[in-house]
Amino acid sequence: MGERLYLYDTTLRDGQQTQGVQFSTAEKVRIAQALDSLGVDYIEGGWPGANPTDSAFFEVAPATRARLTAFGMTKRSGRSAENDDVLAAVMNAGTGAVCLVGKAHDYHVTHALGIDLGENTGNIRASMAHLVAQGREALFDAEHFFDGYRDNPAYALEVCRAALEAGARWIVLCDTNGGAMPADVARVVGEVIAAGIPGDRLGIHCHNDTDQAVACSLAAVMAGARQIQGTLNGLGERCGNANLTSIIPTLLLKDPYASRFETGVSPEALADLTRISRMLDDILNRVPVKQAPYVGSSAFAHKAGLHASAILKDPSTYEHVDPALVGNERIIPMSNQAGQSNLRKRLTDAGLSVAPGDPALGRILEQIKLREDEGYSYDTAQASFELLARRELGQMPEFFEVKRYKVTVERRKNKYNRMVSLSEAVVVVKVDGEKLLSVSESLDESGSDRGPVNALYKALAKDLGRYSAILSDMKLVDFKVRITQGGTEAVTRVIIDSEDGKGRRWSTVGVSANIVDASFEALLDAIQWKLLRDCAGREAAAE
Amino acid sequence: MGERLYLYDTTLRDGQQTQGVQFSTAEKVRIAQALDSLGVDYIEGGWPGANPTDSAFFEVAPATRARLTAFGMTKRSGRSAENDDVLAAVMNAGTGAVCLVGKAHDYHVTHALGIDLGENTGNIRASMAHLVAQGREALFDAEHFFDGYRDNPAYALEVCRAALEAGARWIVLCDTNGGAMPADVARVVGEVIAAGIPGDRLGIHCHNDTDQAVACSLAAVMAGARQIQGTLNGLGERCGNANLTSIIPTLLLKDPYASRFETGVSPEALADLTRISRMLDDILNRVPVKQAPYVGSSAFAHKAGLHASAILKDPSTYEHVDPALVGNERIIPMSNQAGQSNLRKRLTDAGLSVAPGDPALGRILEQIKLREDEGYSYDTAQASFELLARRELGQMPEFFEVKRYKVTVERRKNKYNRMVSLSEAVVVVKVDGEKLLSVSESLDESGSDRGPVNALYKALAKDLGRYSAILSDMKLVDFKVRITQGGTEAVTRVIIDSEDGKGRRWSTVGVSANIVDASFEALLDAIQWKLLRDCAGREAAAE
Repeated sequence: MGERLYLYDTTLRDGQQTQGVQFSTAEKVRIAQALDSLGVDYIEGGWPGANPTDSAFFEVAPATRARLTAFGMTKRSGRSAENDDVLAAVMNAGTGAVCLVGKAHDYHVTHALGIDLGENTGNIRASMAHLVAQGREALFDAEHFFDGYRDNPAYALEVCRAALEAGARWIVLCDTNGGAMPADVARVVGEVIAAGIPGDRLGIHCHNDTDQAVACSLAAVMAGARQIQGTLNGLGERCGNANLTSIIPTLLLKDPYASRFETGVSPEALADLTRISRMLDDILNRVPVKQAPYVGSSAFAHKAGLHASAILKDPSTYEHVDPALVGNERIIPMSNQAGQSNLRKRLTDAGLSVAPGDPALGRILEQIKLREDEGYSYDTAQASFELLARRELGQMPEFFEVKRYKVTVERRKNKYNRMVSLSEAVVVVKVDGEKLLSVSESLDESGSDRGPVNALYKALAKDLGRYSAILSDMKLVDFKVRITQGGTEAVTRVIIDSEDGKGRRWSTVGVSANIVDASFEALLDAIQWKLLRDCAGREAAAE
Repeated sequence: MGERLYLYDTTLRDGQQTQGVQFSTAEKVRIAQALDSLGVDYIEGGWPGANPTDSAFFEVAPATRARLTAFGMTKRSGRSAENDDVLAAVMNAGTGAVCLVGKAHDYHVTHALGIDLGENTGNIRASMAHLVAQGREALFDAEHFFDGYRDNPAYALEVCRAALEAGARWIVLCDTNGGAMPADVARVVGEVIAAGIPGDRLGIHCHNDTDQAVACSLAAVMAGARQIQGTLNGLGERCGNANLTSIIPTLLLKDPYASRFETGVSPEALADLTRISRMLDDILNRVPVKQAPYVGSSAFAHKAGLHASAILKDPSTYEHVDPALVGNERIIPMSNQAGQSNLRKRLTDAGLSVAPGDPALGRILEQIKLREDEGYSYDTAQASFELLARRELGQMPEFFEVKRYKVTVERRKNKYNRMVSLSEAVVVVKVDGEKLLSVSESLDESGSDRGPVNALYKALAKDLGRYSAILSDMKLVDFKVRITQGGTEAVTRVIIDSEDGKGRRWSTVGVSANIVDASFEALLDAIQWKLLRDCAGREAAAE
């Protein structure tokens, strides 16, 4: 058994400080569940009272093995901890652990807070004692600790000692501005321990302003700290927090960490890391960073010719860890032999068997490359991939033909003189030689406008002759839009997720400069994939 | 005068190993010129002979103060350096410096090359001697050095010594697989120097597979190495090379580096770093990484309310360096976590002065919270923020009123029997009591359909009476769509970036379940912000 390291995740609090990031309560719940399955020890859920979605999250927070932690600040001057309403709101979240930030840099105490140093120390001491008295696990975030220690080491230590003496389980040394170098962090952590604060009570909280948050965090561990704070995918204020998605695999797979320490993350959970990282990107509708260490789609991609050929002989020649350990995959460019065998595997998964060396394989790869250059993406849109392959293989029945469509979006005043919007779609298809016209509007059952894509889908599914019955258990469950590059121009990529009564779920893609048209293409693929599954037998017989 | 550190850029060679990156010759020329203006010492231009655009680049390479360097591999077995055609192609590029890679890991020599260890050493020695005999500055990239040194330190050192004795100016220790930890790199560099290879002949080449390439590179410098290899924006195979865009400002601005070392990068060139980083993204058609250390648009963005209010008193409270030093800027975004002082600063920046304690401040914050809960985001959409604030302050003129609009998206066969799409928009507005109807379609100059939002914008801007002339220099430059949560339902958030002939650039936001409607709202804000800027004087007089 190695020494235990504790992982403290602050994706839901400091991660939400990322510019442009604002989680909904439901998203916070999903992320907390993912963090818990990963095996972190603490999940910091937000600052209750400071932010309505944070308060709401604590009300509905899922039961977790990890310790749910509320964040706040130490009590203000001029009132007791019991009578500080900001602190009371934090306590009211009712979490087992509470982390309060306080200032460890004398300059900030006198200039930002405008109080004297002893008063600040007293506020910290009283706040920690209050947490302990209320039966909570108390954590103290020593803000600006490294800058404070540089300018006034005696005071920075005094603050930490006050928190410790008042019962704090953890003193977290924060490099709030992200300017510390790993060597400084290591030296200072060593000195703090030498000054009497035990390493197993010390945490480290770093930011990535010099691109070294991971290295600083690991340096602190080697110097004796035993709790690491960070976020998934390195979300966070400015350049982000220490990236747990990089730190966790390093702790589990790389020496000296792997042989010396242990964490709450199991090898099975580690193998889910890539999926969790991408789920977070999905929630944020961000394109996953291809070059992200361990979890990026390029992290194990071998482009250089020399590398790719050596990899085929022995993967360890150009890989420091096995990608499967973090749930990622090796990529060797499509152009070489491995491309075709990967493709055959994907086709087999879709129920299409193609002999090795079949010239259709080359044509399919060519089509994929061409269309990905135009902005399509077949990684997620598995159903569209299958349809593309079937077309190249001559195994795609033509269920119906779309002759034309027309969508109208209108916004005007209603009879109550309020602006309302309404969309209407007309779709003309030819099924079994017969021309069918359908029209639908975009209002849902409550009378709210759900927009042009919704109207188009309803019109398209409404009358497809003998196929209509098959589509009755199908519905659209998600719709993702991204502006991307198609050749030299910006185009819109739409990904649609569909679901049916048999529990199937499938994704399709459409690309166009016209967002409605891109959506229509994805809708068409979605419907055709469903028809393929539910009437392929009959069609095959008919062809 | 500090000790001189040398910067070796391999954006054009190793950077091109990034998945999806393929520079044209003209792009390589632009990047080389930017690198030269930045002040790096070596520009590795590519592998002549291995790649047609690399060979072409060396033919047209611009004159640079930096030393242009050709990359290749040491001569193969069974022929002399003079008779190796692969090496000859490298020499034929005629560069003053040549960097050849050779294997330093015994396993790779025997398993990948399939030759014996002495033969490999001989090949390296002969190759370096050949470069020197031809009057070139010789560099030796010791591939897999750190893995090799771990498994067989004597052999890894033997290879380096052979290169040095044969006249190599630099021995570059490469962590090819990116798996080394900073502490390992520091220890090994120290041991290499102790074994007789001088630090001022040692370079370091790291990859970011554990998110520590910058820390590893800096650790090597502190251990005695004097050349750093890396790439702009951390481009490179897999997770990328050491990011010079992070390393350079750290070397120039942060201790212990700044006070101990000097490089060829001047303070003036450093202030151009953000521009150069974004120019590279522009060439690659990539969205710049917001959280990139030093150069990202979020690198100096302060979202947390506590941080934002302290920053207003003294920027050094939450910034480890002044953003102007790297050509970047401070951002205090609006968000539901921002306090009143943050808000007042934002209002002042927008030319709106509001006294502290003005009840309008509370109302504006309330409105922002409410609307962010509906899915709006005012972090990026600064122009929409300003309009919202002006409405609350009673400082928003009503330039015009939209009575209604109608957009049609149609897809049908054209006369050549090909499916084509076309959008048409009708907008009805009231300006100065007069009702104006405008219609536009979505085709651009080349006849391509640019979609319904484009048609709506054109129709809206087409006839706004006396305001039309003001809008003539305005255009939409970016359009971002994200599906988000508005209360309990999924809604679409659209962010539109606009630009005008006066060099202004502004962002606006719209939210609706109907994507066209969300876009229209963002368009309206964009136009109103422009009118506010260019005819506010007249309007104010009229009110």
